[in-house]
Amino acid sequence: MHTNTFDERLVALKAEYNTLIDRSNIPVRQAGNGIFRRYRFPVLTAEHTPLFWRYDVDPHTNPFLLERMAVNATFNAGALKLNGVYCLVVRVEGADRKSFFALAESPNGVDHFVFKDYPILLDQTDEADVNVYDMRLTAHEDGWIYGIFCTERKDPSAPRGDTSSATAAAGIVRTKDLKVWERLHDLKTKSLQQRNVVLHPEFVQGKYLLYTRPQDGFIETGSGGGICTALSDSMNPAVITDETILDEKVYHTIKEVKNGAGTVPIKTPHGWLHIAHGVRNTAAGLRYVIYAFMTALENPRTVTAAPGGYLIAPRGRERVGDVSNVVFSNGAIADEDGRLLIYYASADTRLHVAESSIERLVDYCFNTPADPLTSQASVQQRIALIQKNLRRG
Amino acid sequence: MHTNTFDERLVALKAEYNTLIDRSNIPVRQAGNGIFRRYRFPVLTAEHTPLFWRYDVDPHTNPFLLERMAVNATFNAGALKLNGVYCLVVRVEGADRKSFFALAESPNGVDHFVFKDYPILLDQTDEADVNVYDMRLTAHEDGWIYGIFCTERKDPSAPRGDTSSATAAAGIVRTKDLKVWERLHDLKTKSLQQRNVVLHPEFVQGKYLLYTRPQDGFIETGSGGGICTALSDSMNPAVITDETILDEKVYHTIKEVKNGAGTVPIKTPHGWLHIAHGVRNTAAGLRYVIYAFMTALENPRTVTAAPGGYLIAPRGRERVGDVSNVVFSNGAIADEDGRLLIYYASADTRLHVAESSIERLVDYCFNTPADPLTSQASVQQRIALIQKNLRRG
Repeated sequence: MHTNTFDERLVALKAEYNTLIDRSNIPVRQAGNGIFRRYRFPVLTAEHTPLFWRYDVDPHTNPFLLERMAVNATFNAGALKLNGVYCLVVRVEGADRKSFFALAESPNGVDHFVFKDYPILLDQTDEADVNVYDMRLTAHEDGWIYGIFCTERKDPSAPRGDTSSATAAAGIVRTKDLKVWERLHDLKTKSLQQRNVVLHPEFVQGKYLLYTRPQDGFIETGSGGGICTALSDSMNPAVITDETILDEKVYHTIKEVKNGAGTVPIKTPHGWLHIAHGVRNTAAGLRYVIYAFMTALENPRTVTAAPGGYLIAPRGRERVGDVSNVVFSNGAIADEDGRLLIYYASADTRLHVAESSIERLVDYCFNTPADPLTSQASVQQRIALIQKNLRRG
Repeated sequence: MHTNTFDERLVALKAEYNTLIDRSNIPVRQAGNGIFRRYRFPVLTAEHTPLFWRYDVDPHTNPFLLERMAVNATFNAGALKLNGVYCLVVRVEGADRKSFFALAESPNGVDHFVFKDYPILLDQTDEADVNVYDMRLTAHEDGWIYGIFCTERKDPSAPRGDTSSATAAAGIVRTKDLKVWERLHDLKTKSLQQRNVVLHPEFVQGKYLLYTRPQDGFIETGSGGGICTALSDSMNPAVITDETILDEKVYHTIKEVKNGAGTVPIKTPHGWLHIAHGVRNTAAGLRYVIYAFMTALENPRTVTAAPGGYLIAPRGRERVGDVSNVVFSNGAIADEDGRLLIYYASADTRLHVAESSIERLVDYCFNTPADPLTSQASVQQRIALIQKNLRRG
């Protein structure tokens, strides 16, 4: 490699890139659990970002053809189908650890995702973002597409020598076409930390409904904290005062340490389908899994089905990456062709697709037993299933 | 295996060992980033340690030919080319978790590394080492080769029941031939903890220049802590008083939580090349990456180039090991043949080589944009690169 000429290297890099983009994705062969199926390849990796984002391809200024601005990871993407195109607003992370957003498009939602020529340059509010990540895209019935994301800044109250503490708020942009983005004021809330904020796609009581995760002290009901709902009269500015618990974190469940909203809720004939994330602690750090629940169509602030356990947990190569033992989803597309495409990242490193359908996930939510909270009760649930099956045998 | 005779087992073990030592290393096939290239195999693993370090090969005292003193890992090595031989002073860790040093030699720097018959038995100072690790080898212009390493002892002020707290100091040895080692006094410093101390290879203002990482309270300037420099009149004993910040840890960078010197600085026509390590926190524990920067030839206490982001991050199989998500380098060899060999360990488990050149790394340091510290500024850097590329058509 080191003796290759500039031109030879460029040809080799382009060939590798084209092979990656042209590669067709195929579902994994196993029968699977029936609930969803995985695909063999990630839909997006750092290597999917264009070469001209990373290399200065001028032989005069870059004679060795060195990578000038490496991309470290592509993960947690908001998702939306727009004019027949499967669109992801991806969290891209540079080697410098700064995340930003970039639009990638595919003709079918499972492969051939290609980034647009330029990443998204966000306008700034009065307070500059230090890092931004995890945008949820809501096509709201008011006519706008909103992007709600996390904006982090250094905690101004951090003691001297503490170069880590941050404050997180919900940043808001809106667009009609995923090209022109208008930055709005950050969500106004009583809580000093807000991550995983999601905008519901329909008005509720004539207001905007937001899913939030405030600090414990700011939650109206419930002791443990968790996913809350709140109403705002407007999105410009979005202001919430009362946050009411919707889905609480619970001892010895997959959401013991924390949980948060994931994708924008998906409307089904049987209620709103939520794809969220739950976190527990382990000796090797936190474990993030994806779980699902349903809320009532007419009253999305009421849970109607809460299947026990996780929907998606890290598996095989998904287990390892920059932040191992993490799967996370903040985007899904309910396609007219019946597919439900859930975009989930593994280990904060690359993005995958899980394919299901509304019907299957509604069935899953209503017919998977709820978490019985104790080992013995869980065994009793299982014995009931076994007895039912063996009686048939 | 369990039914094999002693002799059959010994033959099999020797064959496995010889296959490993004889194996040629080959660069990975991909076009790569141009900055450095990885090799397919680690240069040293626990299995590279001689069988006679681990087995009692006497059939009377070890009829089952059991491994009597297992080796757990070979990693963080100091490096030096001496009399045409590529020498590594390796951190070897036994199954008992005690680290020690051992010399391994190769004819070319990328494969066929073989350990000398005996590991290095360090003389002790007044205070016995409990653990020693991470030796940097400096061929100083005073004529000695110095080895600076970390020596850890149990913290005498740890409360009863705390069996973990340790104090770390910089141990010092010197040699002419990597065979006979003279132990000197530990570095004398105001700080209670000193890890990652490195000796600069040339006199500065007629004194010895040391790179240190004191506790925050002992740093002369800078708020966050980081890599410091300090001067000592002598190395026998080495005494420093004032530590001045050289490269600070910074919020939301790859060195947010801590950083430290890595290899001995490498002299280039354009300044001193530093290979250091940066640490950030994640939900799955700390993430260690390797980064680079340059200091002025005439004044090595001044940074002249600080490329943003990491140079080397864990990748593929490097990601997982005893301490996952870690790459670390404390040794490099700038070869007369133009190669720059950076020895880096992955996951505190095994040792690899990254091959580059002075020219490439100097180009990398001066032409990779500095970390702009915010997401938006990082996007602006990337957009500038994209525009330059797309204008070329």
